[in-house]
Order: sequence, then structure tokens, then C-alpha cells
Amino acid sequence: MHGKIRIERNPNRKTKPGLEEALGFGRYFTDHMFMMDYEEGSGWQDPRIVPYGPISHDPAAMVFHYGQAVFEGLKAFRTEKDEIVLFRPDQNAKRLNRSCDRLQMPQMDEEFVVDAIRTLVRLDADWVPRKKGSSLYIRPFVIATEAGLGVRASSRYSFVIIMSPVGAYYEEGLQPINILVESHYARAVRGGTGNAKTAGNYAATLKAQALAKEHNCAQVLWLDAIEKMYIEEAGSMNVFFKINGEVVTPSLSGSILEGITRNSIIHLLKEWGIPVSERKISIHDIVEAFENGTLEEAFGTGTAAVVSPIGSLLWNGTLMSINQGNIGELVARLYDTITGIQYGRIEDSNSWMISC
Amino acid sequence: MHGKIRIERNPNRKTKPGLEEALGFGRYFTDHMFMMDYEEGSGWQDPRIVPYGPISHDPAAMVFHYGQAVFEGLKAFRTEKDEIVLFRPDQNAKRLNRSCDRLQMPQMDEEFVVDAIRTLVRLDADWVPRKKGSSLYIRPFVIATEAGLGVRASSRYSFVIIMSPVGAYYEEGLQPINILVESHYARAVRGGTGNAKTAGNYAATLKAQALAKEHNCAQVLWLDAIEKMYIEEAGSMNVFFKINGEVVTPSLSGSILEGITRNSIIHLLKEWGIPVSERKISIHDIVEAFENGTLEEAFGTGTAAVVSPIGSLLWNGTLMSINQGNIGELVARLYDTITGIQYGRIEDSNSWMISC
Ligand SMILES: Cc1ncc(COP(=O)(O)O)c(C=O)c1O
Ligand SMILES: Cc1ncc(COP(=O)(O)O)c(C=O)c1O
Repeated sequence: MHGKIRIERNPNRKTKPGLEEALGFGRYFTDHMFMMDYEEGSGWQDPRIVPYGPISHDPAAMVFHYGQAVFEGLKAFRTEKDEIVLFRPDQNAKRLNRSCDRLQMPQMDEEFVVDAIRTLVRLDADWVPRKKGSSLYIRPFVIATEAGLGVRASSRYSFVIIMSPVGAYYEEGLQPINILVESHYARAVRGGTGNAKTAGNYAATLKAQALAKEHNCAQVLWLDAIEKMYIEEAGSMNVFFKINGEVVTPSLSGSILEGITRNSIIHLLKEWGIPVSERKISIHDIVEAFENGTLEEAFGTGTAAVVSPIGSLLWNGTLMSINQGNIGELVARLYDTITGIQYGRIEDSNSWMISC
Repeated sequence: MHGKIRIERNPNRKTKPGLEEALGFGRYFTDHMFMMDYEEGSGWQDPRIVPYGPISHDPAAMVFHYGQAVFEGLKAFRTEKDEIVLFRPDQNAKRLNRSCDRLQMPQMDEEFVVDAIRTLVRLDADWVPRKKGSSLYIRPFVIATEAGLGVRASSRYSFVIIMSPVGAYYEEGLQPINILVESHYARAVRGGTGNAKTAGNYAATLKAQALAKEHNCAQVLWLDAIEKMYIEEAGSMNVFFKINGEVVTPSLSGSILEGITRNSIIHLLKEWGIPVSERKISIHDIVEAFENGTLEEAFGTGTAAVVSPIGSLLWNGTLMSINQGNIGELVARLYDTITGIQYGRIEDSNSWMISC
């Protein structure tokens, strides 16, 4: 535990954007934010909820120079019974600690982190939108704040939680996306930081992401940096392929993010008795399955979209259209099930949902 | 050009630390800093020098989340004639632009950047220390400031320059250091961001750096991430080996930083008629040279220390002591020459020094 959370209410509530309108992603922020500071020797201290507003740092604060910054992303949903619930926040708290460990940053009490999130959501509960498919996106992050230019781990950090009401990822229902298989740039490598949710990993992807856009692709599919052959993950999603009745996803090699949606989907597939395996898959396996007609479905998974059907893969100039660009049966079932559990329409038999 | 620099003088000058005392590295900062902002559509604007002080950002500012942050490091010296000069600042401006390009950040006019540095140094000229070996370290950096959580390049940035008086790296003259050859963690990989001076690259090294400390080593020597065999560079230095009369340094593979000191040293060696080559070198080559007695010298190069003799390499539990842990003749000559040029004791025949 890191002490009792002090609450300073915002006397100037913002005018909310039409919460029933197109909210986009991460554009509006709620009235409050959570903050807590770390100092070497005394640990995490002064947990507090304060009005959302600018944070001020010395220009020599280490986050600006040496990139010690990790984050998480999860959602609060308003159920059909008007309850507000979180999807597996304990898993985000765990992963946050793993990321901190990789970046030489101090860990936190996981239960306390979940409690901080719940307290903040309760306070800004009227920001959780009601429109179908919308939710409140929650962004916990930790940054190094010591002022100093020696290359070493900072002795001070801030942990901050901000929240943003977000629209349905697919306003008009699931939409297959095009994905560019990237063969020049690399996102991460064995021994690097690929399995941590750290800021630098994302900066490293922006150039490839921009090239993907030029090819009319929504995201990049990363291959391993060593053999440039094994599939890793997409820009902000893990990926799954259904080949000849079996669902396959790349195993956790150390260079991909251990997605919480990924884990939940593997769990559901096992419950449903659908063969699923985590293993190395090369782009050549995919091309082969495409060519012999056994590549039945492909999809990405992540907090933002839950699942995203992949309509086509563009690799070395060859376009592979999957399931004639239609939404597959399995991806639709997974989407309906997970969103059903999140919005309270389907029984939560795995106790994934935590109420606020 | 990005407009005329507006200057707002600091009415409250700081009490300087004893500039003749042990200053350490990057612990004290001068009275002023340079700032300039970028906005998509209108470009870089409002270049200004203002009192050094905290900078304030929305907690959703992209630098905290997606790591778009690049930086440079260079020094101003007070010569024996009491002039203030910079070492090859044009090269830092060039590299800053290359880093920006890799990270999908907007570039700057290189002459303007040098001009901004010179203007700032002139204003805080009394912060350039006089003690032997000391200097004013200059840290230009660019960070993403748009508030938003979509993973994409920011539409806003700040360019900031801060400065810190620093002591001689080796207060008591050159000192050989121990280096740990890292075989588990990776710093960078082909196709990644290793040749950009970006924040995330440094965050990725801190865990290995901490392990090196536990082995009484000052820095890590990185091997390539793919074959775990070819030498790349040290934590914040490029590396050179003198083997049987020839000086060898790893070629610019795309995953190592193109050091300005490295470039200057190659230039000097060529001038001196000493054989020097940039090529792939494996740790096995080094072990072999060590075993057959031809590993004559090894040293790191970088702005902070200029050159650092390597006294020993620790690899897989084997300690290789180089030149009996003594300072080599070549490293001493390089140190004396470069610092001689920097402090105006030796003629600057390559026009490396720019006056402020
Ligand atoms: C790189 C990356 N991979 C995978 C994911 C999916 O993880 P999760 O399902 O926990 O959201 C994300 C985003 O959240 C991500 O940023
Ligand atoms: C990773 C890395 N390599 C090499 C160098 C040396 O570069 P330069 O000689 O330009 O200072 C530095 C530091 O400056 C560095 O951070």
C-alpha cells in the first residue's frame, strides 16, 4: 500500500463533449487525474486525485532525455444495468510492474493500482459514455522526473492516471482492415524492450506506420528482427490466424507485448473447444495457407478495438485478401462474446469484470 | 530560418556552484534556456531565450506516452586565450535532423540550430568554467507535445536547449575503465532506432548498465542483437581497438550511433598515417588478439570523456586485461590532441572549432 488517496475535487467541471457523439480516441479528458510520486529512499508517496491539468517538470527531467516511461491502457464500461465495470484491471497492474522492472523503474502495489483506478473512475463516473460500443479509456503511466543528465535510472518518478471517453472503435460495426507486412524496419528484438509497454517502442514504429498509411494500410505487421520471417504482432494489436480449422498466434518470444485481449481470446477458444496454439509462425506459412486456400480468418486483438478482422495482408507487393475481405465467423463470435461480457449482456463466468 | 531569437533575460541570476569545484556531470544548469515550438501547418516558430525553469505539458502530451524525443550533446570550452568555442556543432545539428527524421519528427534549419546554441552560450558565457578539463555541456532536445492518445506522430513539438557546467570527466587525468561485454540484453537492431539519438535507446540500456555496475564495470559493451557476436558500441561511447598496429572500429551498421568524436578520431589517425579501418569485428577476434598478445589498446570515444582507455573487458566470466590496465600511448596522444584543439593549445587545422 502507498497510503490513503487524498481527493481534491475540481471546482471547474469541464463542458463534456457530446458523449453520445463521435468521440474518437484519446481526444477528450475527464475532470480529474490521479497522481503519486516516488523518491528513492522513501518510496511511493502522496497518492492524490486532483483536477486534470498540466504537469510541470524541470527541462532536465530524465523522461525527456533517457526515455524511462511506461504505460497501460484499459477501459471502463457502462453496463446495460448502468453499473460501471473494468475489464481485467489486475492484469494491467501486473504488466505495468513487469514494464517497470524492464526499464529499471520502481514497482507498485498491484492492488493499490487497481484501487486508484477504481477511485478515479467512481469520481468521474458521469464521463463513462452510454452509447453502444463506447467506453472510458484509462491511461496509467509512469515517467522519470529527476533533473539530471547522467545516463542512469532516475531517482524520482511520477505515476499518473488520466482518462478519456472514447467512441466505439468501429462506429458502424466491425470493419476489416488492411495490414502491411513490414520487411525493412524493426520494432523490437530478443533481449530488447519489446515485451514492455514502454514509450520508446512506439516512437520506433511511427516511420513504418506512416509508410503503411501510404499503402492504404491501417497498421504494420511486424516480423522478427533477426530472420525477418516470423510474425510478431501488429502496431498495437496481437494477431491470430485461423488456418484449416486451427487458430494460431505467435508465441510470447520476449519481443512481443503480452496482450490481455490475446490472453482472454486464447482462454475463450479453449473453453469453446476450438483448437488454438501459440507457436512460431512465419510469413511463408501464411503465404502457403493463403495459396492453398486454408487461410480462413485473420484478426488483431487489443484493448482499443477488442478484435479487428484483417481483410488483407500486403507483403512484398503481393496482396493477400483473406476470407474475400469479409468478416469471419470466429472473429464475429469473439467480438460479440467479449463485448457481451464487458457490457454485461453475457455472463462473466471467468470473473474478468471488476466493478468500480 | 525560423525567425529572430527573442531574449527575455533572467532577472534572478542563480548563485553559481563553485565553478572551480567538482561539478560532476549534468547536475547544475545555467540561467537561461532556448525554446522554440513547432505546429503542423505553420512550422517552427517563436524562437526565444528565457529564464531556465520548469516546462509545463498536458499529461496526455505524446512524449510521455509514445516516446518521440531526440537529443544532442556537445560542449563549449573556454580557451587559454579566454575565448569561448564549440566543437563541431554543425555535426550535432546534422545528427539531430537525422534523428528527427527517423522518429517522424520535423527537421530544423541546421545553421539556425548552431546560431541558437551560440546565442545562448554567449548570454550565459560566465557559466563556462575555467578549470582545466572543465566545460559547458550543451543539451539540445526535441519532444512531442500534442495532447492525444492515438499512436501517431505528434502535430506539435518543442525544441529546447539547456546547458550545464561540467567538470573534467577524469578529475585526476585519464583512468582506464572496466567494461562488461553484454551477451543477454540488446540495445538496438538493424531496422530499429540504434543510429538515432532517441530517448528510448537509453531507457533500454539501464538494466544491463545496472548489471555491469554489479560487476564493477563502468559501462556495457553491446554486441549485435542478431548473431550476438559483432561489437557495436558502449553505453555512450563508440569503441576502438588497436590490434597489431592497426586501429579498428565497428563500421556504421545502422544500429550504432555515428559519434562525432569517432569521426574526428578516424580523421586524426588518417592524418597521422596510422592504419585505421571501419569494419565488422567480432568478440572472437578480440579474444583471439588478446590471447596471442596483439590486442595493444582499446578505448571508447564520446563527447563526455573524449576518449576513455579500456583497462579490461569482462566477457562470459573471463576477464581480459588490456595493456596491463595501463593507459596506451595512442589513446593518450588522441586525448592530448583533441583536448588541445578544444582548449586552443593546438592549432585547429581542420576548422573544427566555432567561436561563440
Ligand atoms: C504493441 C502492442 N501489442 C499488443 C497490444 C494489445 O494488448 P492488450 O490486449 O492488452 O490491449 C497493444 C495494446 O494495447 C500494443 O500496444
Ligand atoms: C550511444 C552512444 N554512442 C556513441 C556516443 C558518442 O557520440 P559523440 O562522439 O558524438 O559524443 C554517444 C554519446 O554521445 C552515445 O550516446
